[in-house]
Amino acid sequence: MWSPSDTPELAPPATRRPGAAMHQMLRELYPLGRSITGDGVRATLRVLATHLPAGLTAHEVPSGTQVLDWTVPPEWNIRDAYVRDAAGRRVIDFQQHNLHVVGYSTPVAGWFSRAELDEHLHSLPEQPDLIPYRTSYYSPAWGFCLAHHEREQLRDEQYEVCIDATLDPAGSLTYGQLVLPGSSDEEVLISCHICHPSLANDNLSGLVTAVGLANWLAERPRRYTYRFVFLPGTIGSITWLHEHRASAVPRIRHGLVLSLLGGPGHFTYKRSRQGAAAIDRAVALALRDAGTPHELRDFSPYGYDERQYCSPGFNLPVGCFTRTPFGEFPEYHTSADNPAFVRPRQLAQSLRLVKSLCRILEHNRSYQNLSPYGEPQLGRRGLYKNIGGGLEGQQWQLALLWVLNQSDGQHSLVDIAEKANLPFTLIRKAAKALRHAQLLAPA
Amino acid sequence: MWSPSDTPELAPPATRRPGAAMHQMLRELYPLGRSITGDGVRATLRVLATHLPAGLTAHEVPSGTQVLDWTVPPEWNIRDAYVRDAAGRRVIDFQQHNLHVVGYSTPVAGWFSRAELDEHLHSLPEQPDLIPYRTSYYSPAWGFCLAHHEREQLRDEQYEVCIDATLDPAGSLTYGQLVLPGSSDEEVLISCHICHPSLANDNLSGLVTAVGLANWLAERPRRYTYRFVFLPGTIGSITWLHEHRASAVPRIRHGLVLSLLGGPGHFTYKRSRQGAAAIDRAVALALRDAGTPHELRDFSPYGYDERQYCSPGFNLPVGCFTRTPFGEFPEYHTSADNPAFVRPRQLAQSLRLVKSLCRILEHNRSYQNLSPYGEPQLGRRGLYKNIGGGLEGQQWQLALLWVLNQSDGQHSLVDIAEKANLPFTLIRKAAKALRHAQLLAPA
Amino acid sequence: MWSPSDTPELAPPATRRPGAAMHQMLRELYPLGRSITGDGVRATLRVLATHLPAGLTAHEVPSGTQVLDWTVPPEWNIRDAYVRDAAGRRVIDFQQHNLHVVGYSTPVAGWFSRAELDEHLHSLPEQPDLIPYRTSYYSPAWGFCLAHHEREQLRDEQYEVCIDATLDPAGSLTYGQLVLPGSSDEEVLISCHICHPSLANDNLSGLVTAVGLANWLAERPRRYTYRFVFLPGTIGSITWLHEHRASAVPRIRHGLVLSLLGGPGHFTYKRSRQGAAAIDRAVALALRDAGTPHELRDFSPYGYDERQYCSPGFNLPVGCFTRTPFGEFPEYHTSADNPAFVRPRQLAQSLRLVKSLCRILEHNRSYQNLSPYGEPQLGRRGLYKNIGGGLEGQQWQLALLWVLNQSDGQHSLVDIAEKANLPFTLIRKAAKALRHAQLLAPA
Repeated sequence: MWSPSDTPELAPPATRRPGAAMHQMLRELYPLGRSITGDGVRATLRVLATHLPAGLTAHEVPSGTQVLDWTVPPEWNIRDAYVRDAAGRRVIDFQQHNLHVVGYSTPVAGWFSRAELDEHLHSLPEQPDLIPYRTSYYSPAWGFCLAHHEREQLRDEQYEVCIDATLDPAGSLTYGQLVLPGSSDEEVLISCHICHPSLANDNLSGLVTAVGLANWLAERPRRYTYRFVFLPGTIGSITWLHEHRASAVPRIRHGLVLSLLGGPGHFTYKRSRQGAAAIDRAVALALRDAGTPHELRDFSPYGYDERQYCSPGFNLPVGCFTRTPFGEFPEYHTSADNPAFVRPRQLAQSLRLVKSLCRILEHNRSYQNLSPYGEPQLGRRGLYKNIGGGLEGQQWQLALLWVLNQSDGQHSLVDIAEKANLPFTLIRKAAKALRHAQLLAPA
Repeated sequence: MWSPSDTPELAPPATRRPGAAMHQMLRELYPLGRSITGDGVRATLRVLATHLPAGLTAHEVPSGTQVLDWTVPPEWNIRDAYVRDAAGRRVIDFQQHNLHVVGYSTPVAGWFSRAELDEHLHSLPEQPDLIPYRTSYYSPAWGFCLAHHEREQLRDEQYEVCIDATLDPAGSLTYGQLVLPGSSDEEVLISCHICHPSLANDNLSGLVTAVGLANWLAERPRRYTYRFVFLPGTIGSITWLHEHRASAVPRIRHGLVLSLLGGPGHFTYKRSRQGAAAIDRAVALALRDAGTPHELRDFSPYGYDERQYCSPGFNLPVGCFTRTPFGEFPEYHTSADNPAFVRPRQLAQSLRLVKSLCRILEHNRSYQNLSPYGEPQLGRRGLYKNIGGGLEGQQWQLALLWVLNQSDGQHSLVDIAEKANLPFTLIRKAAKALRHAQLLAPA
Repeated sequence: MWSPSDTPELAPPATRRPGAAMHQMLRELYPLGRSITGDGVRATLRVLATHLPAGLTAHEVPSGTQVLDWTVPPEWNIRDAYVRDAAGRRVIDFQQHNLHVVGYSTPVAGWFSRAELDEHLHSLPEQPDLIPYRTSYYSPAWGFCLAHHEREQLRDEQYEVCIDATLDPAGSLTYGQLVLPGSSDEEVLISCHICHPSLANDNLSGLVTAVGLANWLAERPRRYTYRFVFLPGTIGSITWLHEHRASAVPRIRHGLVLSLLGGPGHFTYKRSRQGAAAIDRAVALALRDAGTPHELRDFSPYGYDERQYCSPGFNLPVGCFTRTPFGEFPEYHTSADNPAFVRPRQLAQSLRLVKSLCRILEHNRSYQNLSPYGEPQLGRRGLYKNIGGGLEGQQWQLALLWVLNQSDGQHSLVDIAEKANLPFTLIRKAAKALRHAQLLAPA
């Protein structure tokens, strides 16, 4: 375990435009050459550390370690890669774009005929200007990705190919973790994958949203302990689950995988395997209250790291929060998923949404009406004074009545907000006022 | 406790047009100056006593009595009230219309400038011909209500104001109660508020419907004990709940608040807090069988006295049965809610509906099929003889088969009528025929 | 008990067009004069025996036997029946069509006036060319059925009527039964009525579908024991239930009444009384996977023999599988329900569907994921190698993931196929592959 912030830097200036700051961080992260292992991940954690509250730790798990049903793979690092034509010109150049090399490519050097080379090339005939994103983590292979129209320019008979990469069996897998302790040791897990190279929406948008959330949470009292994990997809969450199986895992009460939060599409929430866990209902409520178009989907075992958290042995209440899901927008896993595709306004809206979700998690409780026989006389306690003439006053009165009526110890504030079709924030304020009037106590 | 029928009167002549008799009673009640306490309530109970079966009792609860979380307020009575202009002309006159005075107004006498007076006036700019209905029960105040176009005629500099009312801390709150004993001491509660002055649909229509129901029930054998309560809104039901907390309350199996049953809108049933109580399903079935347009709504903690019956400490199975709900028709709480707004035909239809509901409650039971292995041979028992050729005969056969098939002790006749999509009366007749044939016994 | 195949015959030649063979068998059965008792039933069982796997037994239950709430009626046999006009011409002739005589007619012989005769005639004014099907099993009567336009030709004053039938109190009721033992003694019941005379869709189509299914099942290993019963409607299933109450009945896990499977309409499945029994879900899944239009209906106590199997004392998980249900197509219970109305293609499709249903029943199990913590690494086990590039490969991968994710011992393969919205056969293959890889074990 090491600290990615050993080289202290100045915290970035506070900004009144959180979306702009988030986008700036995203541009800072964009060029780094991430994969499921290697120095790109470490560099990314160092950048995150400059933006996160104190406490981010980096963990190195040696290649070859058994983790659940898997083995940590060799550490991959790449220095250079290119295809040169007969004239010595780099026609495909890793220095120009991270995506040009198939992730986890084995090293290669030599001359290949065009036909031989072609078997190692990946392009998108339907999107001829875009470089696709390809990896080959668990079956040794090498390859290059390029725009289809550039591929069509390759006319030479022979090409010189070089991938100056290493796959080090003595290396390690790296992940980052930040724990913000709360008054309870019950935990909320926020998980982001950190293995994608120059792709902005998938998943730098998730990283910067998580960073924004962590900073916001760090400044306020917390009931829950929040655990942020930044890890390579699949093998990272499997490694983390393996290492925390007896420690953090049993304490997780709610969790969220964050991803694809900077594009233009509307919000999509994929429920946990449990289907009606508190996190599932809280996200649905936050989205309803935001009044923004959104979609709720049932769990399926294909997707991001919720696949691992929701495997039947763990069955954690972890959902996945995105905008347009993976594979459903044309820029997905191509060079078009770049910082221009991600808008500051969209990042800021995503952050607001996860903040409002955490407010719901933090304040959701069940209460007991202390005067449950008939309605208590609110006027005597000054609670009717708050009632104005308009819609707002009516809603306030309704919120008070709903909280009183449903607070039999069996209904949480989330239950009540759902049933009353009133904003959670209003229900919460009503509960606060009723507690102040000694009409309500925690159940 | 006193008897509102100490001065015996002749019972009204039986009529073949129940709507006309109901409307006549409503017109008789309309001019009385009701409020949450006072002589108007007593006078109303005396009129009800002349129309109800024997046994209506009136209960006086002294002002200052603690009832649940509330205190019985001083008794309000009013003799006269007016605003006179400089010429001595009564420009607002309580003698002309009960609604001209804000209910529970404190006494006042003296000259006021037009501006001072104006702060105590209430009118409806959007409905300039109508007098609004206003009260101020729990914060001392005085005021007048008038048509907006009459308010606009007030041009004098000074007005003489008089409200000759008393708020007597040594007075009492009055409510009426009629119990029709049944063969069981399990109870059905029928609750009407009795505190509205000259308003016809809200709630004289509820009173006359309850009276019609009581007379009908009094003439027939009853399984349930029926308890009719006529009480001021909110404080009345709270008082009643307080006084009957250990006696009647635990015996209530079903209950209904009746209100707004004379207007032109379709029926609306608001479910009890329990949501799927027997009363909720029985009313839905009665409405379905009536084939009349209607709406079923979930419980909400705002409304009439079901708020108190359905407070979480009591959580009684009490719904609210109306036509168009309060606040959703333009005549609501104005002088336009007068006897002309309520039609005999509508009152009669409302009465028919609550009668059919009581028939369902009375006859709903679970039975045990005594020949549950295969179908019993109905022909041998003459039960097929009843089958005619047409739709009616087919439905009769279906009803017999449904009752036999579902009578495993787990399904009530209401369950069966719902599932079979057949009228409750047909299902009930089938059960009766099957009992007669000794194929069915109470479960 | 006797064997309908005591006279051995050659098995019919195997055909590559199962629909044609089914239709041929149907045409063979069509002319036989079936009723709820009598020689027509026995002849039918003899024909079935020539097409079924070995083992069909015929059972004779003496008239007068008490069976559940019923009594086995006298055995009815008919030799001839006609109405002759004054000229001695047979104007209605049983030899021309079985349907001309009301089933179970009492014997009659003599001259009747036209008016007297007319009271015993049945025709369809709306379908003047068709002979209706009528019976009078449990109230003694005689009658003839004829095309309405032929009835209108009857102008003579007197007619000679003859029904040469016997109702033998010393006779018996006949039903057939074939049991195909499986590795378990848990049973699947397939029930067809055998009492309809010359009607093709109702119910010869059910018989030939059952025969096709039995032959297919006989050739393969079976987990369940399959019991085929061929019995007269109502009294037959009641008799069977009576006789097997303590033996087969408690072992029935799934059951199906087959009928009306040769007409042009889409499939209709009527659920068992249990409503969500395994058979109900399996049929729904088979229909969904077939991608053919269909309708699912809730149980009702009117219909075929499911009425008896689903009587509350037995409450067996037996549904009813048809195409267009009885009474909902114009040919129903008329001479138009003849072999031309039933198409080989439709019979073959019905057979395919019940086969796929049995595949689901046979292979449905709950499994336990043996590597439930995180996803197991499929690539290492060669399970990713199966993934092609297209939709098929994606679905295979999804099927593997769904089976792994849901196999916590609580979810059956049917549950998983429903939730994943993937074909049962794919889910089953995935489970098989995962068992082979030792990732799954029966729960």
